[in-house]
Amino acid sequence: MKLNRLGESTIIFRNKPKIVSRYAIVGKKEGEGPLGSYFDEIIKDDLFGQKTYEIAEREILQKAIEGAIKKGNINFADIDFMIGGDLLNQIISSSFSARHFEKPFIGLYGACSTMSESLAIGAALVDGGYAKKTICSTVSHFATAERQYRFPLELGNQRPPVSQWTVTGAGCTILGSDENSKIYIPMATFGKVTDYGIKDANNMGAAMAPAAANSIIEHFKDTKRKPEDYDLIITGDLGKLGSEILRDLMEYNGYKFTNNYCDCGQIIFARDQKTFQGGSGAGCSASVLNSFILDQMEKGIYNRILFVATGALLSTISTQQGESIPCIAHAIVIEREKEVVNVDNNSNNEYIKRKNGTSKKIKFSK
Amino acid sequence: MKLNRLGESTIIFRNKPKIVSRYAIVGKKEGEGPLGSYFDEIIKDDLFGQKTYEIAEREILQKAIEGAIKKGNINFADIDFMIGGDLLNQIISSSFSARHFEKPFIGLYGACSTMSESLAIGAALVDGGYAKKTICSTVSHFATAERQYRFPLELGNQRPPVSQWTVTGAGCTILGSDENSKIYIPMATFGKVTDYGIKDANNMGAAMAPAAANSIIEHFKDTKRKPEDYDLIITGDLGKLGSEILRDLMEYNGYKFTNNYCDCGQIIFARDQKTFQGGSGAGCSASVLNSFILDQMEKGIYNRILFVATGALLSTISTQQGESIPCIAHAIVIEREKEVVNVDNNSNNEYIKRKNGTSKKIKFSK
Repeated sequence: MKLNRLGESTIIFRNKPKIVSRYAIVGKKEGEGPLGSYFDEIIKDDLFGQKTYEIAEREILQKAIEGAIKKGNINFADIDFMIGGDLLNQIISSSFSARHFEKPFIGLYGACSTMSESLAIGAALVDGGYAKKTICSTVSHFATAERQYRFPLELGNQRPPVSQWTVTGAGCTILGSDENSKIYIPMATFGKVTDYGIKDANNMGAAMAPAAANSIIEHFKDTKRKPEDYDLIITGDLGKLGSEILRDLMEYNGYKFTNNYCDCGQIIFARDQKTFQGGSGAGCSASVLNSFILDQMEKGIYNRILFVATGALLSTISTQQGESIPCIAHAIVIEREKEVVNVDNNSNNEYIKRKNGTSKKIKFSK
Repeated sequence: MKLNRLGESTIIFRNKPKIVSRYAIVGKKEGEGPLGSYFDEIIKDDLFGQKTYEIAEREILQKAIEGAIKKGNINFADIDFMIGGDLLNQIISSSFSARHFEKPFIGLYGACSTMSESLAIGAALVDGGYAKKTICSTVSHFATAERQYRFPLELGNQRPPVSQWTVTGAGCTILGSDENSKIYIPMATFGKVTDYGIKDANNMGAAMAPAAANSIIEHFKDTKRKPEDYDLIITGDLGKLGSEILRDLMEYNGYKFTNNYCDCGQIIFARDQKTFQGGSGAGCSASVLNSFILDQMEKGIYNRILFVATGALLSTISTQQGESIPCIAHAIVIEREKEVVNVDNNSNNEYIKRKNGTSKKIKFSK
């Protein structure tokens, strides 16, 4: 049997599972941020007309899934599996949403790395011929996360300067085979649980950066690629501080990130929105991927990206028992299939040669 | 591309991913039960020499994984992925264990259905050529589950008669391709989230039985099989009451279970062990599958089984908010490849004809 593997941690999807639809929905604050115009939907009220924030969270997820189905003009009967999870204990947002859709459900827990975990599992199921289409989704909500992991909002607790702001938002990607979409997932690198001993539950960026570094380095080793092979390397929610730590860790390991690296948590909020280190939460990378990033890929601005959602696998009880924070990151390659432009043999035009490559422009001469 | 599917919810593994090793470890009480002699290891002390029950739980899981690797004489370098989850918030037992093993980790949350969820994902990764070997595992601990979902043990709370006893135990199955093992996974049916409106967090059996019924019925519809096609249909942890409800629901839908049906939660404890409805917890089905059930398959007593671990997807917050309990069950077919016995043409011996079928004995005549 042919092994669809590269190195230790990377799996190859030879049938190129396509991204056939996507949808991102966010809260008011996120909608006021720099990416506001890219989101499919911005809700005005964090309670979303519901009685509790937990119910609001699952309604937001449901909206994202319904939105992706509608936007992609997908026949609901063609969807085989729902794959996802969220930050709430026992992933109730995802489970309760799955109850609504009545499709076979694969529940995941990868904290804020869930978007890339669900894409990797979904791509494997489509690539292996086990599914025609899969829904990959996740969600987070500022108010539910604060009260579960830190303090209830009612306490008016002061936030430390290293903290991040959990994004209220959800993202849904629908994967499928044999579709017209040009954007597909050729590879995924599953991450190892990494723990550098950080114990400060407020400083997620510092805790998660080593996990991101590990997965990205594994990916480069497995694939023999370098940072410059990607138009964009984007982590999930390291925030400002965590991103800087990641740059340092990468440089220390001999990989220099240039301006082709950024972090979803860093770009979702503007500086004057007072989120300190930026956004976090499973919904952060999910909503940024399914809006701005995939939009830029559809437009051909990015042709090959590495999407690395990052998760901190702590619980309140592990923190109370004095444990450090184990973290994980899964790296997903997303590429845009580019038509080879018909070359006019009489001209000296510069054209982009690749079918599946990076956006390096190649000078063509007769 | 060939679709490896049957019906709505069942996926087919054409390369027959094999069960190459298994290990089950349980607590003292479970060791004193009827299956005591089948477990690989019985711990004497529920704290397992640790400071907290949570640390004990992850140590037990680690022991199960190490045990399976050793027992199967597996080269650790050949293991590609660790797939699993547990009942604790943010699946800390599995994540913290994965930190120890330094292998790519795929975290799942399916509550007590995790053992079959991890087998289904693991089998897909091996079958699709994405992995040579995968570790599928889960764990639960009576003391950690009680304090997280119900009351701390110190409270000495009275247990209602419909309650079950969370099993302290872990199970690990290692799946692989091209192995000598005769036992393999040919199919899996992913379950849909099912909710019949049960709100009593003490009556898990009643909540989960409809999910089990749903998945088993879907499996029969997808595969055109009937209950009698299986030597054994075994649910995860419905307990005594839940099992009876399942029998009723199946009969109501036109499928009659005979004595080829039982429940892991029902057989792990004896009546005089005062567990009321029997065992529960992710470790219940995991430890019973990886001891008694697979032992009986290795001996050829069962040749085709349907393993249906069942999970209740509630959280304390969903219960406090008055929600009912959504449940899920994933059904895994496990078969034993049987050599066709050389038939002595001069004798009238009864022999078992199948290569991969059920254990229906066929009278052979010249």
